[in-house]
Amino acid sequence: MELTTVKDALTIILNNSEEFGIEEIEFMHSAGRVLKENIVADRDFPPFNRVSMDGVAFSSKAFNEGIRKFKIEGIQAAGSKQLTLKNEHHCIEAMTGAMLPNNTDVVIQYELITIENGFATINLDTVKKYQNVHLKGLDRKKNDVLISKNTIISAAEIGVLATVGKSKVKVGKQPRVMIVSTGNELVEVTETPAEHQIRRSNVYTLVALLEKLNIKAETSHILDDKDTLQTNIQSFLKDNDVLLFSGAVSKGKFDFIPEVLDNLGVEKLFHKVKQRPGKPFWFGKKGAKTVFAFPGNPVSTFVSCLKYFYPWYNKSIGLNFESKHEAILNEDFYFKPNLTYFLQVKLNQENGKLLATPIAGKGSGDLANLIDSDAFLELPHNRSNFIKGEVFPLLTYR
Amino acid sequence: MELTTVKDALTIILNNSEEFGIEEIEFMHSAGRVLKENIVADRDFPPFNRVSMDGVAFSSKAFNEGIRKFKIEGIQAAGSKQLTLKNEHHCIEAMTGAMLPNNTDVVIQYELITIENGFATINLDTVKKYQNVHLKGLDRKKNDVLISKNTIISAAEIGVLATVGKSKVKVGKQPRVMIVSTGNELVEVTETPAEHQIRRSNVYTLVALLEKLNIKAETSHILDDKDTLQTNIQSFLKDNDVLLFSGAVSKGKFDFIPEVLDNLGVEKLFHKVKQRPGKPFWFGKKGAKTVFAFPGNPVSTFVSCLKYFYPWYNKSIGLNFESKHEAILNEDFYFKPNLTYFLQVKLNQENGKLLATPIAGKGSGDLANLIDSDAFLELPHNRSNFIKGEVFPLLTYR
Repeated sequence: MELTTVKDALTIILNNSEEFGIEEIEFMHSAGRVLKENIVADRDFPPFNRVSMDGVAFSSKAFNEGIRKFKIEGIQAAGSKQLTLKNEHHCIEAMTGAMLPNNTDVVIQYELITIENGFATINLDTVKKYQNVHLKGLDRKKNDVLISKNTIISAAEIGVLATVGKSKVKVGKQPRVMIVSTGNELVEVTETPAEHQIRRSNVYTLVALLEKLNIKAETSHILDDKDTLQTNIQSFLKDNDVLLFSGAVSKGKFDFIPEVLDNLGVEKLFHKVKQRPGKPFWFGKKGAKTVFAFPGNPVSTFVSCLKYFYPWYNKSIGLNFESKHEAILNEDFYFKPNLTYFLQVKLNQENGKLLATPIAGKGSGDLANLIDSDAFLELPHNRSNFIKGEVFPLLTYR
Repeated sequence: MELTTVKDALTIILNNSEEFGIEEIEFMHSAGRVLKENIVADRDFPPFNRVSMDGVAFSSKAFNEGIRKFKIEGIQAAGSKQLTLKNEHHCIEAMTGAMLPNNTDVVIQYELITIENGFATINLDTVKKYQNVHLKGLDRKKNDVLISKNTIISAAEIGVLATVGKSKVKVGKQPRVMIVSTGNELVEVTETPAEHQIRRSNVYTLVALLEKLNIKAETSHILDDKDTLQTNIQSFLKDNDVLLFSGAVSKGKFDFIPEVLDNLGVEKLFHKVKQRPGKPFWFGKKGAKTVFAFPGNPVSTFVSCLKYFYPWYNKSIGLNFESKHEAILNEDFYFKPNLTYFLQVKLNQENGKLLATPIAGKGSGDLANLIDSDAFLELPHNRSNFIKGEVFPLLTYR
C-alpha cells in the first residue's frame, strides 16, 4: 500500500477541521482560551486628560506671561472629581493618574520645582503646553477595536478586558476529547506490572499535551477484544467530538482499531504515513466526529499529537494553524529511509538564532529520551544527508 | 537620589530568593510544577526483550542451518506471559510490544514473509540475531536517573512518571502571593466608572502573569488611607510569602506604600531603577517575606513582573533563572534618556532567527499596546542609537 506523505496527511486533516461553538465565561478564567468577539474601547483611553507626573498643574499662558511662583490652591488626587483652578496665576498640586484640573494645561514634576509656604516656584525657562499630560483619547478612541476576535487570551488581554469592563467574555468552546488506550499488556500507574506488562503512560502524556491547549480530556482503557472495543467506541463517538487512540493500528493480530472503526461507520481518510516514528497513524471521520488513531509507541504518539492534532485544533478553534517555527540544525545528520524523520533535538539560543542539536535516542519506544530533548526537527523525505546550518520546521513541546 | 541600575536591581532581587518547601501531589496535577526528587527507572527499559514489529519469531540458528519454512506453534501477544518455542525448527507469531518467546532470537515482520497452512516462509537470504527485537535495558537501566530534580514537569515527564509508577510526586511548593492594588481612582471590573475613575486592571494582569508560573495568587484593593494600608498590609505580610503592589510608590501626595512598608519593618533594598517604564519600582524584605512594589502604570507593572518577579521565582523554586532569550532588532531605534529601555516588540521567525520589530506605543499607560506586541526588548542605558541587526535580551509574554 502506498504511504500518505506527511504533507498530504496534514492537508487532509486540516480540511477536516470542525467548529465547536461559542460560550461565555468569566474573564478571569479565560486565559489561554480563544476570543470569539471583538473587544472595543468603552470610552477614550485615557478617558480624560490625565496627569502623568506627580507635581503642580498651572496655566502655560500665565507661565509665558512671566509668572514663576504660583500659589497652591489645592490638590487634585487620582480618583477625585476634576477641580477648577480659580485664579489663573495660581496652581494646583496634581497626582499621577488624576484628571488635569480645569483652567490648567501643563504639569511640572516635583523634581523641577520648589515648594515653600504654600507657593510652588517653577525652576524652568520654558514649558510646553500639555507637558506631562496624557491627552484624552491619545492611546485609543472610544469604539476602537482593542482585541480582535480569534486572539488567544493572555495576561495582556486580561488587563484590557478588565479595563473595558468585560467581566464575561465570549470564547471558543473546547472540543470534548476522549483518549483511549488499548492493549492487554497495560496496567495502571498505581499497579506493579508483571514481567510481561508495562504501565499505561501514553494516555497521560496525551492528556498533558492537550492541557497545554486548555483542553480537559477524558481517558479510558479497553482490552484487546473486538466486541468490547466496538461497544465502547460507539458510545465514545456519541459523547465526544474527538477520539484519540494510542496503539492497535498496525499489522498485529490484535490491532483491531481500523476494523472496528470501519464497522462503526468511521470513514478512513488515510492509514500509514511516510514518516518515522508514527508510520501506522490512522485518521478518519464520521460526520462531525474526528478520530486520530496514533501508533502505540510513546514517541510516535507524542510527535503525531504535535504534528497533527495541534494544527487541527488550532484551525478548528480559529487560530493561525500554519506553524512558522523553524530551527537551525546544529550538527550534520544522516537518515537513510525515504520517510519524513522527526528528529529529537535539544534547543539553544545563540545571538537570536535557534539551534537544534540532535539527541540520539533508541527509537520510538524510548520515552525517556523525550526528557532529554525539547522538540522535533522535521527532516523531509527524499533526502538522507542533512547539513549543519540548514533550517527545518520545528515542533516544540516545552 | 541615585537610581539603581537594572543589573544591580536584579542582582539584589536574586540574592533575596526564598525556598517555599516541598509537597507531594498527584502526578496528573503536576504539569508545570518543578520536580523535587530524582525519578529513577524502577526496572530496565524495556523490561524484557521486546518484539518491535508484528511478525514471526524463530531461532537464527535454525535459519542459518538453511530452514526457511517454519511451522507456527502459537501466538505471543503483547501482555501475555512469555511463551517457549518447543521445537527449534518452528516459529511463533509475535506482536509488537510482546515478550520475545524463549528459544527465539529474531523477529521478521509480516511484510517479508508468507503464511500458508500454518507455516511461515521467510523470504530473505539472511537475518540478523535480535533483528526487530528491542533488547532488555537498551534504553535505560534499572536505577538510572530518568528525570533530574528541579526539572519543570511537562507532557514528556508525565509519561515517564506514569511508566515508573510515580502516581504521586514531590514538587516545589508554590509561594503564597497577595497582589494589592491601591488608588481611590479604581473601581471594580463590573462597575461603570465615573469620569475621573478607571477600572482595576493591573491586579488581574498580574494574576494572569503568575498563573503562567502555576501560582494561584490572591488579590486585594486598599484605598489611599495610611492607617487602612498599614493594618491590611500587616495582615498580608503575616499570611503570605510575597506581596506584589501596583502603584503608590512614586512622589505623589498619596503614595504611601514606601512609608507604610517602612513603618511595618519591611527593609527597603532599593527604590527607583534606571529604567523606562517602571522607574519608581520599590523592593524590600522583612525576614523571609518579599515585597515587590511596582509602579501603577499598566506597562510598568507588566514589564517589572517579567523582568524581576519571574527570575526571582525561578531561582526560588530551583530553576535556571538566567534567561538566555534574545532577539534581533529588526529596525533602527533611537532612545535618548540614560535609562534601560524596555521596548515593546512584535516577534517574527525567519530562517531560524528571531526578529523583533518595535511597536510604537503611547508610553507606560498604554495598556492596549501590549495586545499588539509579544515581548519587550531590553535596550541598555548609556546608549541612544540601536541598530537593526543588533541582538538584545528579550522578555516574552506570549
